[in-house]
Amino acid sequence: MRFARLGSAGAEIPVLLDGDRTLDLRGVTADIDGAFLAGGGVERVRAALEAGELPELEGAADLRIGAPIARPSAVYCIGMNYAAHAAESGSAPPERMVMFMKAPNTVVGPNDDVSIPRGSVKTDWEVELGIVIGERASYLADEADALAHIAGYVTANDLSERTFQLEISGGQWSKGKSSPGFCPTGPWLATPDEIDASDVRLRSFVNGEPRQDSRTSDLIFGIGRIVFELSQVLALEPGDLVLTGTPEGVALSGRFPYLSAGDVVELEIDGLGRQRQQYVSA
Amino acid sequence: MRFARLGSAGAEIPVLLDGDRTLDLRGVTADIDGAFLAGGGVERVRAALEAGELPELEGAADLRIGAPIARPSAVYCIGMNYAAHAAESGSAPPERMVMFMKAPNTVVGPNDDVSIPRGSVKTDWEVELGIVIGERASYLADEADALAHIAGYVTANDLSERTFQLEISGGQWSKGKSSPGFCPTGPWLATPDEIDASDVRLRSFVNGEPRQDSRTSDLIFGIGRIVFELSQVLALEPGDLVLTGTPEGVALSGRFPYLSAGDVVELEIDGLGRQRQQYVSA
Repeated sequence: MRFARLGSAGAEIPVLLDGDRTLDLRGVTADIDGAFLAGGGVERVRAALEAGELPELEGAADLRIGAPIARPSAVYCIGMNYAAHAAESGSAPPERMVMFMKAPNTVVGPNDDVSIPRGSVKTDWEVELGIVIGERASYLADEADALAHIAGYVTANDLSERTFQLEISGGQWSKGKSSPGFCPTGPWLATPDEIDASDVRLRSFVNGEPRQDSRTSDLIFGIGRIVFELSQVLALEPGDLVLTGTPEGVALSGRFPYLSAGDVVELEIDGLGRQRQQYVSA
Repeated sequence: MRFARLGSAGAEIPVLLDGDRTLDLRGVTADIDGAFLAGGGVERVRAALEAGELPELEGAADLRIGAPIARPSAVYCIGMNYAAHAAESGSAPPERMVMFMKAPNTVVGPNDDVSIPRGSVKTDWEVELGIVIGERASYLADEADALAHIAGYVTANDLSERTFQLEISGGQWSKGKSSPGFCPTGPWLATPDEIDASDVRLRSFVNGEPRQDSRTSDLIFGIGRIVFELSQVLALEPGDLVLTGTPEGVALSGRFPYLSAGDVVELEIDGLGRQRQQYVSA
């Protein structure tokens, strides 16, 4: 199943995307959030769908697309998780999984305008497969257990300001990962049965020109491993977002210019939909 | 004024500590959270106090002390912000402010038992002055503007697992900062008029023996500077917690053993109260 949230920021309507139909979930849940995912919400929606109890949402095509999940309690990011991206960033592939965090209030809709931070000259795109956690995950037994704690997957843009991240940070990356709007998410959340998330193509484009083009099969630390390892050092909450890392083809490589006001970035993951953001001055 | 939250985890009652009296705030607010702080809650409490409308809470002394704020949207931490601590950690004092993040679900009561993570051999204490944000802070004008966005101050323990933070992290510290219970906070939130937060003494003790003993006047980046600088690269939300860094005297220095099950850690900041945690195995 594919879940989305439509409407103005802060007042999104939860919906189910069923083929060409957009079905209103307000009779089942107030939101697509941790409580919904951990509380059997997906099963309730499936039952309501099969019973024909979900009405179509009128005028859905005219509504803004929000992030497909409510603001998470945390956004965890895996760094340098594609060998070719580590190389273009000047690093060897990591021997141990690298994790940093992004402010949760960066999560916005997939097509919302993105503000380039004041003073920024190095705003950079990063297409990533995002994992949405389905139930609290602490000290999981193994990778299979980890996969059972995943509610689904999303397209995400782990936007980065490289001066803030690398040059004025003292080495801790969060400062360059947390500007407002720096995590466009969506357009939809796909449940694990919808795609083989371990091998999907992910691409990005700037002003229509190709930038990144890889597959999640190239991840150094795979999906189950990421969630398993995180659960050994922290507790993942339902609705939390885990970004799995970005492949090669970002501006940090030196091969492409950084983003400026007026640019358009598009990102796409097979089965998880396409984002399109206009960049503006903050 | 001094605000606190009393009762079992997840069901804390908001209170005002008024001299020896504990006054029930449930007639004014459901919780001490971002909405309360940004929505004029402090002023409403002051008016209710002056009008004699706040009843005493019966049996307050028997209740667990929770964190004095509801779970924040983010916990930002400033690293290496005391010169002597940077030196004991093997680093020079930072020229630029270092920021990393801690999972928000680490925030627990000041006297709750702390679980030493499975596999941990380097769990370490860090007493810190915590700033609680009072209203959304983005692109603040200067340090005075930053101070005007602060709701108050708390005692916090920025617990750290040094193997997770430094040895298996690839250099990003959040992995060693986010284990469950790793941010005991409180016992109370003091509004800025209660203390001169720029010059208070902060101390820690393990099994009654002194460890850290410094003053916030030794901060490299001061309180206003921290909030001002963060607001240039991200948006602080009401109720967010910003930990300002820890002074020298932690186990990482090599001068003291790391924590083990059975140990007791106490932390105190003048005017912000004392914490006491028993350490147990996870």
